[in-house]
Amino acid sequence: MNKVITIGREFGSGGRELALKLSEALGYEYYDREIIEEISKRTELSEKYVQQVVEHDPHSHFPITVGHTFSYLHHYGIERQQAVYREQCEVIKKMADTSNCIIVGRCADYILKDYNPLKLFVYSDIDHKIKRCKERADVCEHYTDKQLKKYIKEVDKNRARYYRFYTGNEWGDKLNYDICINMATTDIDKVVAMLVKMLKD
Amino acid sequence: MNKVITIGREFGSGGRELALKLSEALGYEYYDREIIEEISKRTELSEKYVQQVVEHDPHSHFPITVGHTFSYLHHYGIERQQAVYREQCEVIKKMADTSNCIIVGRCADYILKDYNPLKLFVYSDIDHKIKRCKERADVCEHYTDKQLKKYIKEVDKNRARYYRFYTGNEWGDKLNYDICINMATTDIDKVVAMLVKMLKD
Repeated sequence: MNKVITIGREFGSGGRELALKLSEALGYEYYDREIIEEISKRTELSEKYVQQVVEHDPHSHFPITVGHTFSYLHHYGIERQQAVYREQCEVIKKMADTSNCIIVGRCADYILKDYNPLKLFVYSDIDHKIKRCKERADVCEHYTDKQLKKYIKEVDKNRARYYRFYTGNEWGDKLNYDICINMATTDIDKVVAMLVKMLKD
Repeated sequence: MNKVITIGREFGSGGRELALKLSEALGYEYYDREIIEEISKRTELSEKYVQQVVEHDPHSHFPITVGHTFSYLHHYGIERQQAVYREQCEVIKKMADTSNCIIVGRCADYILKDYNPLKLFVYSDIDHKIKRCKERADVCEHYTDKQLKKYIKEVDKNRARYYRFYTGNEWGDKLNYDICINMATTDIDKVVAMLVKMLKD
């Protein structure tokens, strides 16, 4: 069986950076955007829509209006979301079957539990996340600190709900992971060396 | 400045075992009982009393009766507890000043924050803790699983209260630590090798 590392991560804490560095150091494949692309191909839904579904709160798409017209549309929306999740499971398992790999987010720790992955969770305090987000000019580059803080908390809230909905477990609860790493207080290169040591021996 | 590792640990998860193995692998001093012995010497209080104070909920000793007779006794009890905590701080700092060391529990992560310790927290699920406790015939060797579970939860509840009382922080909250390790799902020797790699380079 291939070796698999899953990385749950709070937004802005550096999960992708850790995945990239680990991937380089271990020679494992690192899958992130590829998962979205593959689901998009399989479902013929746009990458943007797939991204939205896998990053957002599934509850928010559930019907509030129960009138006939809207209920059909909502039902269709839920069906599509379920289809995206089913494909996500297939794609992620296929990747784990293909080679040693690292998968960030996407409930991969739960989906791949039979593969006995090393389950990491990375986190940090809000100041560290704001600093990292500002250093990396991305979608929120014009946000004030206050706006960034709100945005970061919102993304994590959605991740928590998504995870709870599909796994029944609490996102970020230590018991769901093997090792949890504070990215604000540890040196990323030392963390990589440490994990390589653990995995290579 | 000496290198310091602090290990917060859920009862029964294997914090002391990790500390001992790390101590052997790194050549750091490992302090546990020695702290109690030293506080006992300094305060002239029995080791049993000191142990009880540092493992139990400080709130439970606060006065409920406010009548004159009892309030004096309670006040004296609180004073003694504060004295024990003050001595604990002194003893722990003296140990960190003396050599590279590992300190388990005792709010050492908080007391030694100026020493920039590597702050570990180890935990596991209740089944793992019950199994470990039963393998190690100690105070609770005649307990049923149900009694053991209750005992374990009670000890951890007291540790959490003690930590909150003296540090103002939440015991076991990931943000207070650098690395959290699930002792039920990781191999202790690999964890030791991993941490040695992180600390030696």
